[in-house]
Amino acid sequence: MNPKVSIIMGSVSDWPVMEKAAAILNDFKIPFEVNSLSAHRTPEEVGSFAKGAYKRGIRVIIAGAGGAAHLPGVIAAYTTLPVIGVPCRSSISLDGWDSVLSILQMPPGVPVATVGLDAAQNAGILAAQILAIADEAIGQKLKTYKENLKKKIIEANKELAGHKFEYRVI
Amino acid sequence: MNPKVSIIMGSVSDWPVMEKAAAILNDFKIPFEVNSLSAHRTPEEVGSFAKGAYKRGIRVIIAGAGGAAHLPGVIAAYTTLPVIGVPCRSSISLDGWDSVLSILQMPPGVPVATVGLDAAQNAGILAAQILAIADEAIGQKLKTYKENLKKKIIEANKELAGHKFEYRVI
Amino acid sequence: MNPKVSIIMGSVSDWPVMEKAAAILNDFKIPFEVNSLSAHRTPEEVGSFAKGAYKRGIRVIIAGAGGAAHLPGVIAAYTTLPVIGVPCRSSISLDGWDSVLSILQMPPGVPVATVGLDAAQNAGILAAQILAIADEAIGQKLKTYKENLKKKIIEANKELAGHKFEYRVI
Amino acid sequence: MNPKVSIIMGSVSDWPVMEKAAAILNDFKIPFEVNSLSAHRTPEEVGSFAKGAYKRGIRVIIAGAGGAAHLPGVIAAYTTLPVIGVPCRSSISLDGWDSVLSILQMPPGVPVATVGLDAAQNAGILAAQILAIADEAIGQKLKTYKENLKKKIIEANKELAGHKFEYRVI
Amino acid sequence: MNPKVSIIMGSVSDWPVMEKAAAILNDFKIPFEVNSLSAHRTPEEVGSFAKGAYKRGIRVIIAGAGGAAHLPGVIAAYTTLPVIGVPCRSSISLDGWDSVLSILQMPPGVPVATVGLDAAQNAGILAAQILAIADEAIGQKLKTYKENLKKKIIEANKELAGHKFEYRVI
Amino acid sequence: MNPKVSIIMGSVSDWPVMEKAAAILNDFKIPFEVNSLSAHRTPEEVGSFAKGAYKRGIRVIIAGAGGAAHLPGVIAAYTTLPVIGVPCRSSISLDGWDSVLSILQMPPGVPVATVGLDAAQNAGILAAQILAIADEAIGQKLKTYKENLKKKIIEANKELAGHKFEYRVI
Amino acid sequence: MNPKVSIIMGSVSDWPVMEKAAAILNDFKIPFEVNSLSAHRTPEEVGSFAKGAYKRGIRVIIAGAGGAAHLPGVIAAYTTLPVIGVPCRSSISLDGWDSVLSILQMPPGVPVATVGLDAAQNAGILAAQILAIADEAIGQKLKTYKENLKKKIIEANKELAGHKFEYRVI
Amino acid sequence: MNPKVSIIMGSVSDWPVMEKAAAILNDFKIPFEVNSLSAHRTPEEVGSFAKGAYKRGIRVIIAGAGGAAHLPGVIAAYTTLPVIGVPCRSSISLDGWDSVLSILQMPPGVPVATVGLDAAQNAGILAAQILAIADEAIGQKLKTYKENLKKKIIEANKELAGHKFEYRVI
Repeated sequence: MNPKVSIIMGSVSDWPVMEKAAAILNDFKIPFEVNSLSAHRTPEEVGSFAKGAYKRGIRVIIAGAGGAAHLPGVIAAYTTLPVIGVPCRSSISLDGWDSVLSILQMPPGVPVATVGLDAAQNAGILAAQILAIADEAIGQKLKTYKENLKKKIIEANKELAGHKFEYRVI
Repeated sequence: MNPKVSIIMGSVSDWPVMEKAAAILNDFKIPFEVNSLSAHRTPEEVGSFAKGAYKRGIRVIIAGAGGAAHLPGVIAAYTTLPVIGVPCRSSISLDGWDSVLSILQMPPGVPVATVGLDAAQNAGILAAQILAIADEAIGQKLKTYKENLKKKIIEANKELAGHKFEYRVI
Repeated sequence: MNPKVSIIMGSVSDWPVMEKAAAILNDFKIPFEVNSLSAHRTPEEVGSFAKGAYKRGIRVIIAGAGGAAHLPGVIAAYTTLPVIGVPCRSSISLDGWDSVLSILQMPPGVPVATVGLDAAQNAGILAAQILAIADEAIGQKLKTYKENLKKKIIEANKELAGHKFEYRVI
Repeated sequence: MNPKVSIIMGSVSDWPVMEKAAAILNDFKIPFEVNSLSAHRTPEEVGSFAKGAYKRGIRVIIAGAGGAAHLPGVIAAYTTLPVIGVPCRSSISLDGWDSVLSILQMPPGVPVATVGLDAAQNAGILAAQILAIADEAIGQKLKTYKENLKKKIIEANKELAGHKFEYRVI
Repeated sequence: MNPKVSIIMGSVSDWPVMEKAAAILNDFKIPFEVNSLSAHRTPEEVGSFAKGAYKRGIRVIIAGAGGAAHLPGVIAAYTTLPVIGVPCRSSISLDGWDSVLSILQMPPGVPVATVGLDAAQNAGILAAQILAIADEAIGQKLKTYKENLKKKIIEANKELAGHKFEYRVI
Repeated sequence: MNPKVSIIMGSVSDWPVMEKAAAILNDFKIPFEVNSLSAHRTPEEVGSFAKGAYKRGIRVIIAGAGGAAHLPGVIAAYTTLPVIGVPCRSSISLDGWDSVLSILQMPPGVPVATVGLDAAQNAGILAAQILAIADEAIGQKLKTYKENLKKKIIEANKELAGHKFEYRVI
Repeated sequence: MNPKVSIIMGSVSDWPVMEKAAAILNDFKIPFEVNSLSAHRTPEEVGSFAKGAYKRGIRVIIAGAGGAAHLPGVIAAYTTLPVIGVPCRSSISLDGWDSVLSILQMPPGVPVATVGLDAAQNAGILAAQILAIADEAIGQKLKTYKENLKKKIIEANKELAGHKFEYRVI
Repeated sequence: MNPKVSIIMGSVSDWPVMEKAAAILNDFKIPFEVNSLSAHRTPEEVGSFAKGAYKRGIRVIIAGAGGAAHLPGVIAAYTTLPVIGVPCRSSISLDGWDSVLSILQMPPGVPVATVGLDAAQNAGILAAQILAIADEAIGQKLKTYKENLKKKIIEANKELAGHKFEYRVI
C-alpha cells in the first residue's frame, strides 16, 4: 500500500492539531504517511521530502506549521503537487495571524491551498476532494460524509427543543 | 469541449482580478467556463450552478469575491468538488481583511482552498495542479511552467548587474 | 401563537451565546422560534427556512454564527425581512474578527443589521425595537426596560460609596 | 408629509457617503429628513433631536459617523427607536477600524444595528425592511428591488461572454 | 474638602481597573470623587455630571470605559475641563481594540487625553501632573514619586544578581 | 514673553501635522516654542530639553512622532510636566498603528496623554484645557471656541438643505 | 573575564522571558552581564549604561521590553553596537502588538535587530552569530548547535510513528 | 576584493527598496554583492547561495522580501551567518503585515534580525554595526555617521524658526 497523501508538520508539537487530518484520511480509507520536518532546522530533508513525494505515489501534501510558517511554501517550491497549508496557532505564534499570513500570501506561480486556523480536519477533507477527481469511490464517500454532516445538524437542531421558554413556539 | 474548471466571481467588477485565472488556464489549454453570480443577490442560481457543476464535467471551481465574501463558501456547501477561493480587495472591502477571513475560516467539514489576496493567477495554477493528479500532460506543463519561473528569476538577477556601485562586487 | 421572531444559529454550540436573545424576547413576551441550521452543511434547509419565514408570521430574524460566519448573509439573500447578525467568538474563530467581518461587510443591496461580538442580548432588544414600530405595547416595554437600565446604573453607582479612601469625597 | 426615517451624520463631510441612504429612501418613496449634528460638538442638540424623533413621526434613524464614531450610540441612548449605524471612513479615521468598532461594540441594553463601512445604501435598504414590517407597499417594493438586483447580476454575467479565450467554453 | 478630580466609569465592573487611579490620588492627597454612570444608559445624568463638574471644583476628569467606550468623549462634549480616558478591556470588548479606538480617535475640537489599556494608575498620575501646573506641593510629590520609581528599578536590578550562570559576569 | 507650551517633533517632516497645534496655541494667545529633536538621533539634546523645560516656564509639552514613536515617552521620562503625545502617520509608519501603540502604551508611572492619529489640533486644545485650570482667561476662550464649534455645525447643517429629493422633508 | 554580551530588560518581570537568552549564552560559553533598567523610569542610567557598554568590552546588546517598548531603541540611540530587541508580551502589552511595533519600526539611521515575540532564545543565538564573525570557536559551536537542532527534529519525527492508524503507511 | 555583505531580494521589483542598503554599504566602503533569488521559484539556488556564502567571504546577509516573505528565513536555515531581514511592502503584500510577520516570527534556533518595513537603509547600517565588532575602521565611520545624523537634526531644527507665529517664542 502506497501513501497517496503526505501529512507533514513543522514540529511534533503540532500533532494535536494535525492528527485531525490523519483521522479524516483514515476514515476515508486513503493511505497516508506522517512526518515532522522543519523548513528551518532541516531544510535539506524538506527539499528531499518534497522532491521525492510524487515518485512515492503522493498526490496531495498537507503541511501544517505555526509562527513564520514557511513549511507549506517551501514544500510548494519543490513540487508541482497540490500543497494544502494548515496555519497552526502554536506557542510561538502571534495569536495565529503570523501563521495565516505566512502561508496564505504566496507569490505568483507557487500557490498553497490554505485552510482555516488549526483546521486540519478540513485539510483532510480537501485532500479527499482533490483525490476524488480521479477516484469515484472517494467521491462517493464524500457525498455520504456531507449527508452525515447534514443529518447531524438536523439532529442537533432537535436538541434545542429542550430549551423551554414560555414564549418559545416549538 | 467540456469545461473542466469553472471560474465564478461575485461581481463582474472582480473580473480584472479574476481574468488572471482565466489566462493561466488558457495557457495550460485547460477548458474552462466563466460566470458572475452573487451568493447574496442570486442565491438560487448559485445553488443550481454548484449542484450542476460535476455533471457538466467541472472538476475544480475557482470562486472570487470581496467584502463579506460568501460565494466560495456557499458553493462549497453545495458540492464536493474542490473549491478554490480568491479573496478580492474590492471597493467594498476593508483593506481585504474581510475578504480573506470570510473565505478562509470555513467550519469543519466544508473546506475552501484559499489563495492570497487578489491571487487569481495562483488559483489558476492550483486548479492545474489538482487536475494534474489525473492528467500527466498538465503535470508536464506545470513542470515546464515552474522551470520558466526559475529561468525568469535567474535572468532578472542578471539585470541587477546594471546597478553599479564602487564597492559592489560583481 | 405564531412566532414573530426567529432565532437561528450556525451550530448548537452557539446556544450559550444565543440564549440571551431568547431570554430577552421571552421577557418582552414576544413569541419566537429557535433553530440551528448551517449555511454550509444544510444550505437548502437554510434556503427553505428563510423563504418560508414571512409566511410563518416571522417579522425579524436573529442569526448568530462564528468563523466564516455566512449564515446571516445567506438568510438575508433569501428574504426581505430584517436580519440581525450576531458575530460569535466560537471555537473556530480567529478572536472573533472573522465573525465580525463576515457578517458586517455585506454587499450593496443585501444588508445585515450587525450587533457586537457575542451580543445576542442586544440582538433581542433590537428585534423588539423593530417590532415596536408597529406594536405600541412592545414600545412601552422598551421604555420600561430602558428606565430599569438607568435605575440599575444609579443603584450600582451607590455601591461604589463602599470603597473608602481618606481623600475620597462622598 | 411627515418624515418616517431620519438620516443624521456627524459632519457634513460625511454627506457623499450618506446621500446613498437618501437616494434609496427616495426611490422607495419613504419620506425622510436629513441632519448633520455632532455628538461631541452639539451634544444637547443631538439629545433633543433623538428624544423628539418619535413624536415627529420618525420610526427609524440612520446615523453615520467616522473616527471615534459616537453619534449612533449616543442617539440610541436617548430613544427606543431602532438606530442604524453607518461607519464612515472619514479623513480622521484609522482606515475605518475605529469607525466600525466605535459603532458596533455597544454595551448590553443599547444596540446599534451596524452596516458595513461606508455602506449607507444598505442602511437605506435596512430602514425600508424595518418599515416594511408594518407597510406592505414597502415590502412589495423591496421584493421588486431584490428581483432587479438579481436581473442586473444575470445581465452582467452575460457581459462576461465578451471576454474570449481559446479554451473558454461559452 | 472639595474634590479636584472626578473619577467616573461606564460600569461598576470597571472598578477593579479604575481603583488604581483612586489609589494614586489618595497617595498624592488630592481630594477626588468616584462615580459610575453610563453614556448609553444614563445619558442625561452624564450630561449633568459633566456640565456641573467645574462648579463643584473639579479640575480634571478621569473617565474609564470598555467596548464602544463613549463615556470619555461624551463627557468631553459637555465640558472644557481636561478629560483623561482609560480604555478598559472589559468583558464586552474585542481584546481592548474597540476601547482604545473609541476613546482615542476623537474629532477636531474635542480631545480626550488617552492613556494605555487598563492604565488607570497612569491616569491618576497624569491628573496629578495637570494639577501640579498650579500647585507646587503636588509637583514636589511627583518628583518624589518619580525618584521612588527609579529607586525601585535600581533595587530590583540587584535582585537579578541572584540568577547565577557560570558565564555570567556580576 | 516666556513660552508656556513646548511643541516638539521627531522630525521636521512632521511639521505639516504639528503646525496645527501651533495654530491653535497662537489663536488662544498662548506663548509657545517649537523644536524638532529626535529621541534616537539626538538623545542627549532631548534629555536636556526635557529637564530644562520647567525652568524655562514650560507647563505643557506637546510631542509628535511617527513609527517607533519614542519621543513623547522619552520626554515623559525626564520631566513631571504633562506630555501630550501626537502619533503621526509618517512615511516610515505602518499605517499609523506603530505610532499610536508606541505612544499610548506607556508603563506604570510614566503616562503620556495621547490624542488621535495626526490630531495635533486636539493636542493644542488639550494643552489649553490644561493651562486653563490655572488661567481663567484661557478657560473663557475655550468656552468661546466650543460655542463656535457648535455654531459651525449648526450652520453646516443648514447647508444640507441644498440637497433636494422629492421625498425629503425639510 | 569581561562580558561580551549585555542582556538588559525594562522590568525584572521580563526575566522569565529573557533568561532564555542568558541560558543560550551560557551554553555557548560567552561571558555576559544582566541588567534591568527602564527607559522611562531610569533614563539617565540607561544612557550611561549604553554609552559605557563598548568600553566595558560589550560587543552586542540584547534588550527586552513590553508595551510601549522603548528600551531597545533608546539604547540604540546611545551606541553604535548592534542592539537586538526582544518584544515581550508583558502584562501591560496589547497582545504583544505594541511591543513588536515599538521595537521594530525604528527611524532611518538607528536600527534595532528585532526577533520574534518573547523570542529571547533566538536573541541569544543571534548574539552568538554576530560574535562568530570574529570568533571561529563560537562559529563552530553554532554549527554543532544547528546540527543538534536537526537531529532533534529527526528524532522527534520518529516519535510520530507511535501514532497508528489503519491506513497510515510507515 | 571579496564581498563581505550579501544583499539578496526575492524579486528584482524589491530593488527600489533594497538599493538603500547598497547605498549605505557603498558609503561605508564595505564591499558587497547583490542578488535576486526567490525562495519559492529558485529554492535550490537559494540553498547553494546560502551554503556558499561563508566561503565567499560573506559575513552578513541582508535579505528582503514581501508577502509570505520566506527568503530571509530560508537563508537562515542554511547558514549560521547573521541574516538581516527587510520586510518589503511589495505589490502582493497585505499592507506589509504579512511581510513583517513572515520574517519576524522565526522558530527557536533560527533567528532573523528583522528591521522595519521597507527599512533597507537600516539593514545596511546594522550590517556595518555587526562588521564593526571586528573592524575598528567601520566602527569609526559609524560614529561619524551618527554624529552627522545628529548635526542634520540640529540643522533641521533651525529651519523651523522660519515658521513665524505672533505667539511663538524663538
